[in-house]
Amino acid sequence: MSRKTAGPEIERLVQLLARLPGLGPRSSRKAVLSMLKRRNELLVPLSEALQQAIAKIAECPVCGNLDTVSPCSICADPRRDQSLIVVVEEVGDLWALERAGVVSAQYHVLGGHLSPLDGVGPDKLNIASLVGRARSPDVKEILLALNATVEGQSTAHFISDQLVSADVTVSRLAQGVPIGGELDYLDDGTLAAAFKARRKL
Amino acid sequence: MSRKTAGPEIERLVQLLARLPGLGPRSSRKAVLSMLKRRNELLVPLSEALQQAIAKIAECPVCGNLDTVSPCSICADPRRDQSLIVVVEEVGDLWALERAGVVSAQYHVLGGHLSPLDGVGPDKLNIASLVGRARSPDVKEILLALNATVEGQSTAHFISDQLVSADVTVSRLAQGVPIGGELDYLDDGTLAAAFKARRKL
Ligand SMILES: [Zn+2]
Ligand SMILES: [Zn+2]
Repeated sequence: MSRKTAGPEIERLVQLLARLPGLGPRSSRKAVLSMLKRRNELLVPLSEALQQAIAKIAECPVCGNLDTVSPCSICADPRRDQSLIVVVEEVGDLWALERAGVVSAQYHVLGGHLSPLDGVGPDKLNIASLVGRARSPDVKEILLALNATVEGQSTAHFISDQLVSADVTVSRLAQGVPIGGELDYLDDGTLAAAFKARRKL
Repeated sequence: MSRKTAGPEIERLVQLLARLPGLGPRSSRKAVLSMLKRRNELLVPLSEALQQAIAKIAECPVCGNLDTVSPCSICADPRRDQSLIVVVEEVGDLWALERAGVVSAQYHVLGGHLSPLDGVGPDKLNIASLVGRARSPDVKEILLALNATVEGQSTAHFISDQLVSADVTVSRLAQGVPIGGELDYLDDGTLAAAFKARRKL
C-alpha cells in the first residue's frame, strides 16, 4: 500500500485484525469496512463484547480453562466425574470434546505442547500443576487427549513419565484419531469412538 | 453445539466475530481463542482500536468516505483535481483506487448499488447528493467507477440519466475491467489501464 487513505485508526484496526488466524490483510480490510458500515449492529456490540471479555474472562487457576468464574464452571461442577482428568493442549480442544459431549469429567489445559526448538520446555506448560492434581486421592485416571502429532505424542510421553510416581492410570485416546490430525478438526463421532476405545498406556 | 462450555461472554464474542465476512463459526472460535491467549498483544489493543474507531471514525458528509476528519482528508485536500468526481459503490473501492494510485481527484461513495429486489432504490444510495455536487461549476467530469456487474452497470445507467441536466461529462472505466469482476479484487495495473482508457458515456 503506497498511499494511506484511511486514517491511522482504520489502519491500526486492519493490522490488528490481520493478526487473527484465518484473516489476511485483504480479508481484514473487508472485515473493518463491514464493521464500520454496520456500526450499531456490529462495531459497537463487538467493542462491548471485547471489553466484557477483558473484564471478565480469565484462566482457571486449577485447570487452565477460560471462563468468567474462578475456578471455572467445569472445575466447580460437582456432578462431573472427579476421578478422571482429561489433559488437552489448548482450550479449543476442551471445547471440541465438550461440544461432542464425549465425557463429563475434569480437564487440564497444558497451554500447548513441548517444542524444544521453539524454546517451549516443560516449565512453559501447565505440567507441574497436573502432576500435583494427579496426587489427589480422588483422581484415578489421567487421559492424555493430545494431538496425534509428533509434538503432541512426545509431550504425552514426557507427561506419562512424570506421572509414574502418582497412583493413577495413564491412558490415551484410541487409534481412531487420524495420524497427524488435530483434535479440534475431528467430527463428534470420531471423538466419541476414540474416547470409548481409549487404552491404558 | 449442544452444550455450552464457554461462558456467555465468549459465546457472544464468537457469534459477533462470525458475522464478519470471511469468518465462519469455526474460524471465529479460533480467532477468539487466539485473542484470549494473547490478551496484552491482541485482545486489549483490538478493544482499544475499536473504541477509537467508534469515537473518531465517521462518514464524510460530502463524499461518503470514512475518516477521522470531517470533511474527509480527500475532500479537504486542495492539491487534488476538483473537476473530476470518481463515483464508487463502496469505501473499499475507493481504497482500492487510492492504493493503486490511479487518480488524484474527488470521490463519491454511493453506499452500494441499486437492487430493487432487496428494496434498495435510489433514495437508499447517495445519488441525490452526487447530482448536487455535479451542478458545481468546478466539476467537469463524473467517472462512474462501479463494479462491472449487472447491478453496478444498471446503477451507472440510472445515475447517468440523472446527470443529463448537469453540465458534466459522464464517463465509465474502460472495458478492461473483467465482466462480472469487482473493483476491489483487481490488480493495480488493470485498474490503472481501465482508468486511462475511460470512455465518455
Ligand atoms: Zn477449571
Ligand atoms: Zn469526503
